[in-house]
Amino acid sequence: MTLEIDTPAVLVDLDVAEANVRAYQSYCDSHGLRLRPHIKTHKLPRLAEYQIAQGAIGITCQKITEAEAMVAGGEMRDILLTYNILGAEKVARLRTLAARVPLSVVADSSEVVKGLSAGFADAATPLPVLVECNTGADRCGVATPAEAAQLAQGIAALPGLTFAGLMTYPPIGRAPEVAKWLSEAKGLIEGAGLAVSTISSGGSPDMWRAHEMPLATEYRIGTYIYNDRSLVARGVCDWAECALTVLATVISTPAEGRAVIDAGSKVLTSDLLGLEGYGHVLGRPDLKIDQLSEEHGRITCDGPIGLRVGDQVRIVPNHACVVSNMLDHVVLMRGTEILGTEPVAARGQVW
Amino acid sequence: MTLEIDTPAVLVDLDVAEANVRAYQSYCDSHGLRLRPHIKTHKLPRLAEYQIAQGAIGITCQKITEAEAMVAGGEMRDILLTYNILGAEKVARLRTLAARVPLSVVADSSEVVKGLSAGFADAATPLPVLVECNTGADRCGVATPAEAAQLAQGIAALPGLTFAGLMTYPPIGRAPEVAKWLSEAKGLIEGAGLAVSTISSGGSPDMWRAHEMPLATEYRIGTYIYNDRSLVARGVCDWAECALTVLATVISTPAEGRAVIDAGSKVLTSDLLGLEGYGHVLGRPDLKIDQLSEEHGRITCDGPIGLRVGDQVRIVPNHACVVSNMLDHVVLMRGTEILGTEPVAARGQVW
Repeated sequence: MTLEIDTPAVLVDLDVAEANVRAYQSYCDSHGLRLRPHIKTHKLPRLAEYQIAQGAIGITCQKITEAEAMVAGGEMRDILLTYNILGAEKVARLRTLAARVPLSVVADSSEVVKGLSAGFADAATPLPVLVECNTGADRCGVATPAEAAQLAQGIAALPGLTFAGLMTYPPIGRAPEVAKWLSEAKGLIEGAGLAVSTISSGGSPDMWRAHEMPLATEYRIGTYIYNDRSLVARGVCDWAECALTVLATVISTPAEGRAVIDAGSKVLTSDLLGLEGYGHVLGRPDLKIDQLSEEHGRITCDGPIGLRVGDQVRIVPNHACVVSNMLDHVVLMRGTEILGTEPVAARGQVW
Repeated sequence: MTLEIDTPAVLVDLDVAEANVRAYQSYCDSHGLRLRPHIKTHKLPRLAEYQIAQGAIGITCQKITEAEAMVAGGEMRDILLTYNILGAEKVARLRTLAARVPLSVVADSSEVVKGLSAGFADAATPLPVLVECNTGADRCGVATPAEAAQLAQGIAALPGLTFAGLMTYPPIGRAPEVAKWLSEAKGLIEGAGLAVSTISSGGSPDMWRAHEMPLATEYRIGTYIYNDRSLVARGVCDWAECALTVLATVISTPAEGRAVIDAGSKVLTSDLLGLEGYGHVLGRPDLKIDQLSEEHGRITCDGPIGLRVGDQVRIVPNHACVVSNMLDHVVLMRGTEILGTEPVAARGQVW
């Protein structure tokens, strides 16, 4: 079926997205886990509001400008910024934002904590700060439970801040090690007389196993609302549960086993996430998107490709979150019904 | 030195960019080659105007919206759209654009040519169409010189169009094969009574060897204005000739040999172009940017990393063109002088 949409375009099927939100909220509810969706996947206030209306306790953002865009576009209830906010100008902006919405942040060093305290020392309400813990993903985070306890005490001792708990971006499939790490940190911190009110974990790959770490009080998750090829490959969802697709048109069929579409790296991005090729052409598992230039996607297959110039293809990208960031608008759909375009409010926000 | 710029930010040193433009214009002038820069690298009307003022015959764009943004922002003289324009709505918009600026396009199939003719049949001025030729890069393009000749005659025979020459996106380092292909096509087309007024080749990797294919009348090139890590790796330029850099701040130093910066795939992109790692930290060849999340860049090295929280680093990205597309603004500099921010006029234009 040809859709009356000019290509390339990013399509979001709201029926699918909303069903994904409800399904995972139900899972969290049944396990007593608070859900805090990461809005980086969709960047749309309307979907954040839907997530909250279904039971999410608030949202996760990565950057101040992303949070600002969400607050400007809807009622966000409560925001956790899972990022080291550094620099006087950013901290001042954080304080302005904290006056508008309940806000907490993370930190993994005394430098970051000192900067936050300097900005909030005379604030009417102290800023809740969670300690980011490296439980094995080796990105940010304090290295040991002892360091976590030390930083927690540092936060509690500084003006303008309250210690609010532990946060981790966990390695995939290692719940027991993560639980051991966090449990040890929690024990040390409680031993020092501080309450650990929140333990925040997350990640879409392990989403259906979140209950295997009951220590966590809340779960941060982004991709589950759209799903993508990487999560299908991991067995987390199937193609019918992929809400975000890229609609492209075949602009050339220059050889028997090759076609070129008008979606390149400026739409699909070069993210591989360990996969081969740059997306899955729905209904055509025999095709491979084997090369991207900025505006060209090359599709190959072993036999005759069976595509003609002008044909549309619909692609599940490797990584939905980064595709949301590429265009200023997405096209909202319900099944085959086109609802219209929606600006991606938090696109491009990296500050 | 710490720059008074909040990070992450994309910096463009105009002194370096302008020197790059002049150096390559001088090379083209000395070889009698017309230069037609591809604006996808910078997406800034002011730099396109600079390229034209230095002697470029016009510009190359990939998409209609990109060309529209350039025409809206400056005097572009002449535009070649190196893309199969397909669909009635796009062709109508192409015609509107052609009324504003001398415009030519490419095509590699009769389907595309017929669509163009349908849209321009009653236009006051016919649309010049070049035949795109696959000389070995295996993206778009007719497969053989005989097909090129056939399509050229098809273009010449249709109302609203004129045959304007041959265009190729050549494979790297294969000038003799490309020349043989194009020469054969030219002979066949001239034998059929048509003039081949333009033969358009291009590509930054072979930019200093463009004269090795004297058959080409014009050269399309984009990256040369900014350069990037991929071109340094190929020996085309050196670090001092890289005009676009990403300024980032160290936000975490969680282990002896690891630091995390606030520039991730939303700034640096996941483009590898065959390289390892996601960019070169200027002045620190021992560092490796080995992993990107959307907002985190992980830097590792074998020994102590020698970076502190709050330090700035300046990164030459793997691929400058895609970085230009990520943020709404770039910061213009001359050396260490900050001139201000400039909107990236043609960012995100994929239609």
